[in-house]
Amino acid sequence: MPLVRIDLADTRPPHTRRGIADGVHQALVAAVGIPAGDRFQMVTAHPAEDLLFDRAYLGIERRDVVYVQITLVAGRSRAIKVELFRRIAENLAAVGVRPEDVHVTLTENTVEDWSVGNGEAQLLALGPVAGTLP
Amino acid sequence: MPLVRIDLADTRPPHTRRGIADGVHQALVAAVGIPAGDRFQMVTAHPAEDLLFDRAYLGIERRDVVYVQITLVAGRSRAIKVELFRRIAENLAAVGVRPEDVHVTLTENTVEDWSVGNGEAQLLALGPVAGTLP
Amino acid sequence: MPLVRIDLADTRPPHTRRGIADGVHQALVAAVGIPAGDRFQMVTAHPAEDLLFDRAYLGIERRDVVYVQITLVAGRSRAIKVELFRRIAENLAAVGVRPEDVHVTLTENTVEDWSVGNGEAQLLALGPVAGTLP
Repeated sequence: MPLVRIDLADTRPPHTRRGIADGVHQALVAAVGIPAGDRFQMVTAHPAEDLLFDRAYLGIERRDVVYVQITLVAGRSRAIKVELFRRIAENLAAVGVRPEDVHVTLTENTVEDWSVGNGEAQLLALGPVAGTLP
Repeated sequence: MPLVRIDLADTRPPHTRRGIADGVHQALVAAVGIPAGDRFQMVTAHPAEDLLFDRAYLGIERRDVVYVQITLVAGRSRAIKVELFRRIAENLAAVGVRPEDVHVTLTENTVEDWSVGNGEAQLLALGPVAGTLP
Repeated sequence: MPLVRIDLADTRPPHTRRGIADGVHQALVAAVGIPAGDRFQMVTAHPAEDLLFDRAYLGIERRDVVYVQITLVAGRSRAIKVELFRRIAENLAAVGVRPEDVHVTLTENTVEDWSVGNGEAQLLALGPVAGTLP
């Protein structure tokens, strides 16, 4: 049920884009506990001049940026989110993205706010959402 | 006031893109009760390999995906959301999108969070928002 | 910490795109009080037919549209948001965007929902967020 938007420079080759998407997904599976099949992602490649970022904000030396914006159901703990950020950066490092250049944002909604096909609101009937308190 | 992002494969021809956008808007008008003129949408076409989705999650056989992400003011009932999902899938089927391939997400904000032109926060003065309880 | 998405027609030249991004950032600095270095933005240029908008909704005569979608930590007052909208439109007018054509949406999250590099959740340790009440 997370929906993942990844925005990056078009200078990153297609196989790297796929590796980045894989790394974000595997981090969600490991940190949040979503099923492996719960994968919905889109990648948008931008000309470098259309991705703007500060090269020093909070003392981090950025040279490029990969924006990862994740929409997910509310209720994951602070500890889970912290672990998710850590794993995303770790997984992306494995495909050549500097940890300094990984920017992640979460936006929360509820189980009422999802239809993953057939015009139905599947999450209303699914029972507890992975990683949330009962 | 809803803001609609539609992300789809660039293999869908332009007239289909427009039909998809029309179908989402008509579903919002019918299910949520927004005015016909309250239309703000953007379509982004991606190379197929940049749209990632699971082909079987929750038992739905997807062959492609159309991501519809709607930002709207909070307060619409669960029943309205369920009806919105149903109508979006129905309207998109009419322009050749398989219902299995329609993925919809809602994200809510408040009347303070909108400026639809001229740098003003129009929704603060508009009175009750369509489809919300008084 | 705001994350800014700007979506506009690909007919606007690159230097205008940059001017628009600058104008949105300067409005955030002035109205919300974020540090000048807290800049994370992406611009997406769309074929004109993929940006859909109503030409008359709420009596505003639009000829084009620039969508500005800002994700930011909750807690900014209504007065700050109103001032932000006003300044964005004012700054964009200075680079040739008609105020009627500026559409702004805010989506809020929390300090737990941000990692601006290195896989860390920096905002948890930063102290009060600019523009929010203590």
